[in-house]
Amino acid sequence: MPKLMILSQNADEYKALIGSFQMPELEITDDPKACEIVLGEPNLIRGNLPLLSRLKWAQSVYAGVEPLVDPAQRRDYTLTNARGVFGEPMSEYVFGYILFHEKKILERIRTQQAKQWQRAESGVLRGKTIGLLGVGSIGAHLAGTAKHFRMTVRGFTRESETSKQVDQYFHGDDILKFADGLDYLVSVLPRTEDTNRIVDAHMLNALPTHAVFINVGRGNAVDETALVNALQEGRLAAAVLDVFDKEPLPADHPFWTTPNLYMTFHTSAITYPPDMAKLFAENYRLYIEGKPLKHQVDFKRGY
Amino acid sequence: MPKLMILSQNADEYKALIGSFQMPELEITDDPKACEIVLGEPNLIRGNLPLLSRLKWAQSVYAGVEPLVDPAQRRDYTLTNARGVFGEPMSEYVFGYILFHEKKILERIRTQQAKQWQRAESGVLRGKTIGLLGVGSIGAHLAGTAKHFRMTVRGFTRESETSKQVDQYFHGDDILKFADGLDYLVSVLPRTEDTNRIVDAHMLNALPTHAVFINVGRGNAVDETALVNALQEGRLAAAVLDVFDKEPLPADHPFWTTPNLYMTFHTSAITYPPDMAKLFAENYRLYIEGKPLKHQVDFKRGY
Repeated sequence: MPKLMILSQNADEYKALIGSFQMPELEITDDPKACEIVLGEPNLIRGNLPLLSRLKWAQSVYAGVEPLVDPAQRRDYTLTNARGVFGEPMSEYVFGYILFHEKKILERIRTQQAKQWQRAESGVLRGKTIGLLGVGSIGAHLAGTAKHFRMTVRGFTRESETSKQVDQYFHGDDILKFADGLDYLVSVLPRTEDTNRIVDAHMLNALPTHAVFINVGRGNAVDETALVNALQEGRLAAAVLDVFDKEPLPADHPFWTTPNLYMTFHTSAITYPPDMAKLFAENYRLYIEGKPLKHQVDFKRGY
Repeated sequence: MPKLMILSQNADEYKALIGSFQMPELEITDDPKACEIVLGEPNLIRGNLPLLSRLKWAQSVYAGVEPLVDPAQRRDYTLTNARGVFGEPMSEYVFGYILFHEKKILERIRTQQAKQWQRAESGVLRGKTIGLLGVGSIGAHLAGTAKHFRMTVRGFTRESETSKQVDQYFHGDDILKFADGLDYLVSVLPRTEDTNRIVDAHMLNALPTHAVFINVGRGNAVDETALVNALQEGRLAAAVLDVFDKEPLPADHPFWTTPNLYMTFHTSAITYPPDMAKLFAENYRLYIEGKPLKHQVDFKRGY
């Protein structure tokens, strides 16, 4: 009978949820030496790796699994991440900020504070172009919402072209062609060696000055100095950043006071335990049938 | 050959668009006495009504046609409005403010200004309930976007139940049942005698205190004093108002400074001339075939 250990801040909630699913032959244990499956946060799993002598499969409740793909750690088990459950909250976040910008919500709050009846026209999404840096499960969800709002969708990927909601794919050296003419650039890239500083001065220069950049992937993808310069010089309309190269953001970082830069604090996608438990249940069924699991991490690639 | 007169601030744009459609036998004229069709803003059409001696059909470029359904005006022609083209911008507006609220965008701007790294959790739309006061063509579009975000949709209508995206319809005396438990209440009601003060103290009391009210219909639907009281006493989380009983809003109106009240200034749905011209072309084809036109206004009902 496979034994599961839960290594999560929300362990009680996961126990209740997984218990309610009545999964065949699954036993929940608190003994790291007894379990062959773990479910939890990557940093908690990492802390227990030396004890998990029977580990065969770890299911991360986050999409990012940096602590576990670190080359210094063991890789003798199957690692799956939670990217399947973040499309929805990330899509709400990204389109919340896109509409905040188009509908001039902050400007209208200021107009109201000045007691001025001012009929500035809002923008509309239809016909605008969004570019997705990275089109995995989250990017595909963003593309679907963009299509609901009748936007044109470009995708930049290493080579995959899986989402049919993307109108045009770009790869490799075509990255500046991808950026040219975008109204919105959204990065959902994971932290890997290949994604370092993809959004650099060249890419920011290739965007129209009315463009908005949104980062819900990882902070390493951005040349932070180039971004500050672009915003200060008005070469970019706005940036919305949920992730940073160093988190929490240092108190003396220029981002805090850069004009038209909106920061949230790694909150764009909270894990919703019922969704996560459902994803775990699906994967567990595949596991006991000996089939490939969903959202497997390639340790070498890093995501 | 039917003659069309354009009575709009955007007359040149409409002329070019309609010219490009190559509509059979249609001639554009500047002579009010010669035309049998007019296209334009309701107030401009109203000003010309006494001159339009051959008028058979008027196509309003707005959804609201109050100047033309005024009982003092003639009613011997077919009046169609533009409700078919406002679903999309209104949906962007409504969901822009819904996401602005759920994602705590203003709160995060203030956190950033205070230089605090603060990870307040965002809300998610999935599973929340939106109630639509009025489900015509605009309400149906809102329902579709709500379904995209996996919300539950309630509709309150006089009797129609046309949109399949609405999960549950309410009518007549069930209005407080409709309001009970809503997370978002959105009015798209037109101004008629029946819609006066539908959103009154009883209805506001029936909403949960965390609810948000959004009005993109007409200002007469709201008891403005009751709304100010509810917001001041914290019995409602927020209100977003694009329309008011009296526009422009008087300088001494309490709305300007009511807490958690966000005002825009009748800008939620701008008419997009290409869409409007397309709707006109569709209706024109029906007109020359002698078929019923789309979005006909019932003068008595008022919309």
